[in-house]
Amino acid sequence: MRAAVFNGPGSIGVIDRGEPVLESPTDAIVRVVLACVCGSDLWYYRGESPHAVGTIGHEFIGVVEATGSQVSGISVGDLVVAPFIYSDMSCPHCANGSMASCPNGGSFGNGTIDGGQGQYVRVPQAASTLVAVPPGEHSSETLRSLLALSDVMATGHHAAVSAGVRPGATVAVVGDGAVGLCAVLAAKRLGAERIIALSRNPARQRVALAFGATDLVEQRGDAATERVLELTKGVGADATMECVGTSQAIETAAAIARPGSMIGIVGVPHGVVPFVPTFFRNIGWRGGPAPARLYIPALLDDVLNGTINPGLVFDFETDLEHVSEAYAAMDERRAIKSLIRVAPR
Amino acid sequence: MRAAVFNGPGSIGVIDRGEPVLESPTDAIVRVVLACVCGSDLWYYRGESPHAVGTIGHEFIGVVEATGSQVSGISVGDLVVAPFIYSDMSCPHCANGSMASCPNGGSFGNGTIDGGQGQYVRVPQAASTLVAVPPGEHSSETLRSLLALSDVMATGHHAAVSAGVRPGATVAVVGDGAVGLCAVLAAKRLGAERIIALSRNPARQRVALAFGATDLVEQRGDAATERVLELTKGVGADATMECVGTSQAIETAAAIARPGSMIGIVGVPHGVVPFVPTFFRNIGWRGGPAPARLYIPALLDDVLNGTINPGLVFDFETDLEHVSEAYAAMDERRAIKSLIRVAPR
Repeated sequence: MRAAVFNGPGSIGVIDRGEPVLESPTDAIVRVVLACVCGSDLWYYRGESPHAVGTIGHEFIGVVEATGSQVSGISVGDLVVAPFIYSDMSCPHCANGSMASCPNGGSFGNGTIDGGQGQYVRVPQAASTLVAVPPGEHSSETLRSLLALSDVMATGHHAAVSAGVRPGATVAVVGDGAVGLCAVLAAKRLGAERIIALSRNPARQRVALAFGATDLVEQRGDAATERVLELTKGVGADATMECVGTSQAIETAAAIARPGSMIGIVGVPHGVVPFVPTFFRNIGWRGGPAPARLYIPALLDDVLNGTINPGLVFDFETDLEHVSEAYAAMDERRAIKSLIRVAPR
Repeated sequence: MRAAVFNGPGSIGVIDRGEPVLESPTDAIVRVVLACVCGSDLWYYRGESPHAVGTIGHEFIGVVEATGSQVSGISVGDLVVAPFIYSDMSCPHCANGSMASCPNGGSFGNGTIDGGQGQYVRVPQAASTLVAVPPGEHSSETLRSLLALSDVMATGHHAAVSAGVRPGATVAVVGDGAVGLCAVLAAKRLGAERIIALSRNPARQRVALAFGATDLVEQRGDAATERVLELTKGVGADATMECVGTSQAIETAAAIARPGSMIGIVGVPHGVVPFVPTFFRNIGWRGGPAPARLYIPALLDDVLNGTINPGLVFDFETDLEHVSEAYAAMDERRAIKSLIRVAPR
C-alpha cells in the first residue's frame, strides 16, 4: 500500500509499505477514504516538536475491511470515524475523559503504528475506538464534516467544554486556526450568545462568521485585550478558549478572561502559563488532548442532521501522492487545513 | 482603641489608634470580639510577601456598633461574621464569584483600612459584606467556628469546590495547615468518601481525622506520590486540593491528581505551576482568593446545626495585647492557627 512517511522536519514523502494485518483479536483494518493534516503535524514538519521518522497522520475516516474475533459493534463495510487516540474506554482514565492516559491506548501515525495518511490502518481496540456512521448515502460535504470529528472539531469542542461555555454566554476564542474555528462552532452549538473570534485573516474570518462568530477582533497582544474588554464592557469573556499554544496566545487568553472564569486550553502549551496573575483573579485553566471518542457520537448526530458543518475548515485538498503539498499549503498559511483524498468511498 | 500594627518582617506591635468612624453611608463600625492570624499574615511576618507598615489582620467576628444611613439588613447589636474581602456583591465580578476583583472592594488590614486584629473596624460596603448571625446564645466553641468562616474555612471550601469534590469521591489534600485541614472538612461536608490527608504532624493529623480524613500520608515528595497512587490503585485522586503554595506542594498535587481531574489551588502560588505535564493528562487548575461572602451563609448554617466545627483549627489563643505571641506560635509551628480574644461578646 501507499502511505505518507515523515522523514524529518520539512520532509514528508509517500512510500510503499506492506498492508497491515490483524495482529490482535481486538484489531480492525480500515481502508482510509479521507485523511487530513493536523496543526500538530505542522509542529513536527517545522521541527518545533519531535516526531519519530515513519508513519504520520492521526485523522481519518474509512471503511472497515476486516475485524478481529473480539471486535463487536463494528462490521466489515461500515463507514467509520476514527478518533485520533485509540483507547479501551473501560479503564479509569477513559471513564474520567482522559483517553490520552489509557494504558491500552495510543495514537495513530506516531512513527510505528499506522498513520491516517495512508491507504490502510490497523486500528487497535477497534470496538471501543471506531464510531460507525449510520448507513446511507452521504454527500461529499458530510464526509468532510465527519472527517473533522476525528480530531479538529472534537478538540474545538473540548476547548468549549473545558472553558465551561453555557447558553447565553459571551465567549472569546484565541486562535483562528482550524481548531479555533471549530471552537467557535462548538461554542455556538453549546448556546453561546456572543462569540468573539480573534482573527485578522479574511479567509479565516469568513469561516468564523459562518460558524457563528458575532465579533471579529483583528488586533493582537495588548490591543486585542483592550478591544475584547471594550466589547465586554470591561468585564472580559465568560469563557475563553485558547487554541494556539504560543506564549502570546496564552497571555492574551489570560488577559481577556473575566475574573472567576475558566480558560479552556487545547493548544499544546509552548509557552509558560502565567498562573499567578490569573490566580488572583480566580481564573482556572483546563484542557488537554480531547476525549474525541467521547464527543464523536453527539457531534456525528449533529453533522448528519445538519446542525454543524465543521468540514468548512478544509480549504485545500489533494490526493495521497501529493501529501507534501498538503503540508506546504498549511505551512505557508495558504490553507487553513488540508484534506487528503485517499480513496473513493 | 488598641490595634495590632505591622512594623515590618518579624515585628508585630500593639498601638493606640483613633477609633474608626463612619466615613460613608454604606459603612458600618464593628467592635471586634474574636480575631485570628492567617497563614498569609505569616508570609508577611516572615518577609516572604510584602505588606505595608500599618494595620493588619483580615479575619474577625464582632458586634455592629454603628451603621451608615444606606446600610440595610445589618443592625446595631448584631453579631456578624466578616469575610476577609469586602465587596459590593452586585458587580459582574462578584456575580461571577471573584470578590477579589470587585471594583468597590478591598481587603481588611492592608496597612490603611482597619485590620481585624484591633478593637474596632470600619467595614465598607457593610450591607453586602457582613453576614449577621441569628440571635441567640452561642457557645465559645460556636463562636470559634464562626470566626473560622471569615477566611480559613471559606478558603478550604473554595479548594474543595474548585477541585470539583463530589459525593463518593476519593480526594487528596496537600497541606496540613489550617486551610488544608478545613479543606478536609469541606470535602467531607461535600460527600467525599475517601479523604487522603498529607500530614506528618501528630497534632494536625488529629484534627484531620476529626474533620473526616480517612487516610494519612506521612511521606513527602516522590514518596508521597507513590503512597497516594498505592492508596488509589494507581489511578490518583478524583479531586486534589493544593493548600500550601510552595513548589513542592504544587508538584505533589500535580503528580497525585488523576488524569481528567481538577486541582483546587488556594495557596498563593510561590512556585511554578507545572502546566505542560498536567496538560497531557487533562488535569485542570482552578482557584484563587475564596469568595468567602458567597460561601458563609451555608457554612454558617452548618456551624449552627452542628454539622461542621472548623473552630478546631485554633489550638493557641491569647489576647490582643499579646498578638505578637500569636504570630510567634504559628511561625515556630507550635500552633496550627492562633486565635485572639479581643473583647467579650
